[in-house]
Amino acid sequence: MRRKKYLDERLDACGNVNLGWLVDYAAEQRGETQQRTLDVREIFGNDNPVHLEVGCGKGGFAVEAARRNPDINFIAVEMARNVIVSAMELAVKENLPNLKFLMGKAEYLEKFFPENSVERIYLNFSCPYPKETYKKHRLTHPVFLEIYKHILIPGGEIHQKTDNMKLFEFSIENLSQCGFKLKNVSLDLHNSGFEGNIVTEYEKRFSEQGFPIYRLEAVNPTK
Amino acid sequence: MRRKKYLDERLDACGNVNLGWLVDYAAEQRGETQQRTLDVREIFGNDNPVHLEVGCGKGGFAVEAARRNPDINFIAVEMARNVIVSAMELAVKENLPNLKFLMGKAEYLEKFFPENSVERIYLNFSCPYPKETYKKHRLTHPVFLEIYKHILIPGGEIHQKTDNMKLFEFSIENLSQCGFKLKNVSLDLHNSGFEGNIVTEYEKRFSEQGFPIYRLEAVNPTK
Ligand SMILES: C[S@@+](CC[C@H](N)C(=O)[O-])C[C@H]1O[C@@H](n2cnc3c(N)ncnc32)[C@H](O)[C@@H]1O
Ligand SMILES: C[S@@+](CC[C@H](N)C(=O)[O-])C[C@H]1O[C@@H](n2cnc3c(N)ncnc32)[C@H](O)[C@@H]1O
Repeated sequence: MRRKKYLDERLDACGNVNLGWLVDYAAEQRGETQQRTLDVREIFGNDNPVHLEVGCGKGGFAVEAARRNPDINFIAVEMARNVIVSAMELAVKENLPNLKFLMGKAEYLEKFFPENSVERIYLNFSCPYPKETYKKHRLTHPVFLEIYKHILIPGGEIHQKTDNMKLFEFSIENLSQCGFKLKNVSLDLHNSGFEGNIVTEYEKRFSEQGFPIYRLEAVNPTK
Repeated sequence: MRRKKYLDERLDACGNVNLGWLVDYAAEQRGETQQRTLDVREIFGNDNPVHLEVGCGKGGFAVEAARRNPDINFIAVEMARNVIVSAMELAVKENLPNLKFLMGKAEYLEKFFPENSVERIYLNFSCPYPKETYKKHRLTHPVFLEIYKHILIPGGEIHQKTDNMKLFEFSIENLSQCGFKLKNVSLDLHNSGFEGNIVTEYEKRFSEQGFPIYRLEAVNPTK
């Protein structure tokens, strides 16, 4: 209880870096319709393109991406509150006007983001859910790809990195089957000559263990 | 000269297992139009589906595939005469009515195979041509993919195996960009649980050296 209160306080202290919950779960359970829609101009005070990171963890990638690209608005989503709080605190420290955070599950993205509102989605080291029975939770399952297709602009892109071979095979298959066009596929990112890579927390850990890092870009087909 | 004469004799000795040249290069150079078109019924005496292997090398794969699938007609293409001769001799020894060979370059496939005439194309350990300036020779360059699309039936498939990471990345990108849908992608075939794999000559060599083998299937879109 004390720990939870402490977490609430930390989240509150992040001020407007914290956009709150993707959906109001309590209202959802009461069966109320959620009508909260992203308004970029209101949130960021400009119409810059929006890049979304799903499952941002402790936020090292989002913070560095926002730092390098001041003309892009970044929104990072993460369902684990005790993890995203570190990301938000890092962002507060870096004082980046173009980075905000949403708490909640990717399943609800469609309720918050209007159609054709996102230019790019980053999926970095998403949980692989290796068991066949859990494959619906993998963030490149067709259920999620349909959500991404809806909120991405035509020609918008998904940029994925992972150390997990099975997840990468699964992603290639589903992206292709759902009509995304693949480009810049790398089966060993760190030895590929790719420039400007932003190493995430998990990427550092896995590559130190000697695993190759896989990466791809997938272009949203014109609807 | 003597060696070449000896090779001609060996090729002749393969009888009707040898379908001859994909195109008549001499006639081609004289500017004559080539009008040689595949007639499955004439060649095999039946209307079974046609599977094509491009760059068959010494033919171990084609011979074994034909042995296992008597109801499929196999045609194996290879541009190196001194290599394909071994493949033909192996096929003669195995006495397989459903396997024939064509000499020549994949570039000319479209002249010999009618539209929608091939159910499946196998690309096994195609030459990687690592140099950027030679990429047009890679058998999954868009120039070749357009040829395959033309001769494949709608829903027909390309099955590729390679040990070469760069060629596999290149293939995924081009197949996807050209509208093929990818499935059964494997980044480590020999540890993937895939059943019924027919190991080719190059596959044996590369996997003994400890390299992972990549494999994919790509479905021809409906035109
Ligand atoms: C393995 S961590 C990777 C974190 C970070 N991207 C990195 O590369 O260091 C995956 C993160 O995705 C989050 N996650 C998994 N499924 C999610 C979902 N459906 N919606 C939002 N976040 C999710 C997990 O809570 C976890 O923090
Ligand atoms: C590396 S070998 C692999 C042979 C065999 N498939 C295996 O896996 O053992 C590639 C073969 O493709 C042939 N080849 C390359 N480009 C070709 C083309 N454009 N048309 C026909 N054959 C080609 C080469 O002559 C060579 O024998």
